[in-house]
Amino acid sequence: MKELKERILRDGRALADDVLKVDSFINHQIDPLLMERVAEEFQRRFAHSGANKILTVEASGIAPAILLGRLMQLPVLFAKKQQPSTMGDFYISRSYSFTKQKECNLIVGRSYLTPEDRVLFIDDFLALGSTGMAVIDLCAQAGAQIVGMGFIIEKGYQGGHRTLLEAGVTHIESLAVIDSQENGQIRLR
Amino acid sequence: MKELKERILRDGRALADDVLKVDSFINHQIDPLLMERVAEEFQRRFAHSGANKILTVEASGIAPAILLGRLMQLPVLFAKKQQPSTMGDFYISRSYSFTKQKECNLIVGRSYLTPEDRVLFIDDFLALGSTGMAVIDLCAQAGAQIVGMGFIIEKGYQGGHRTLLEAGVTHIESLAVIDSQENGQIRLR
Repeated sequence: MKELKERILRDGRALADDVLKVDSFINHQIDPLLMERVAEEFQRRFAHSGANKILTVEASGIAPAILLGRLMQLPVLFAKKQQPSTMGDFYISRSYSFTKQKECNLIVGRSYLTPEDRVLFIDDFLALGSTGMAVIDLCAQAGAQIVGMGFIIEKGYQGGHRTLLEAGVTHIESLAVIDSQENGQIRLR
Repeated sequence: MKELKERILRDGRALADDVLKVDSFINHQIDPLLMERVAEEFQRRFAHSGANKILTVEASGIAPAILLGRLMQLPVLFAKKQQPSTMGDFYISRSYSFTKQKECNLIVGRSYLTPEDRVLFIDDFLALGSTGMAVIDLCAQAGAQIVGMGFIIEKGYQGGHRTLLEAGVTHIESLAVIDSQENGQIRLR
């Protein structure tokens, strides 16, 4: 996705320890017009997925997921990192956040993920694939089927794409793939 | 907002301890078409606010905020509850979550909230007004001006509206106001 790649090269910053800072337009401050075109691109790529539900995780996945849900007219479910007092029975799995350098829980209410669901998972980053693996686990617990996974940015050198393929996800789309970011230099595929 | 009120009466559930469960369409699973009309209503009510930035807090505020940002063509900033490793200098304030029954941090990168900003704050719930007060504090630290606050649902009996007015917020809009929810019976204003 050309516009996204140009924006990453212009406004993204490669920090130490393989962290890519895109918080001026994706995951802290959000450019809603760029995000709308991200959603349009996901819609195009997953038009034939047969999804009946979009799943994401709080917080950075919510913006692209809700814009895609609006376009595809599908309900959007976001996994929570803490169990709110309003939640009844739930599924839970654990994920490792690369940028936060720690594990976190992903929690979904049982009534919102069922064997009838054909899930399209959307997130901002694919790095090690840990969140994706937790989502696979949540869907397996619920008996839901994953029909695709879409990521705004993939760190191509961190192996998450292969991890998710090997776990059985057949349709993965990343709108921009970072091949390397050594010495502060972002190289896109 | 008639459609929202009807949906609250149909799908909302009044739990014990004044908790209103709307997680089938607002803050866990989201109906993006209802949320789009929520955003349209906010756009109408804040059309003359002069806002140049929309501010919300993760996670449940992001969906209405990004849809409104798309309509108003304004950048959307969401305050984080934990400091990510990518964040440099930041402002921080503390808020009490009514549903989670605990305090949390709200954190905004300094470069994204400045004295030039005329902030429209958007969130899913107004209850005690604690999050709104933390946002007032963040904006005061940054020298930013708050031009309005919009909430999808206000618990009219919890006093947050008055708290925010007394703190100097002159334009507050709530799309549905709960007057009481005693004995599982939701009463709307």
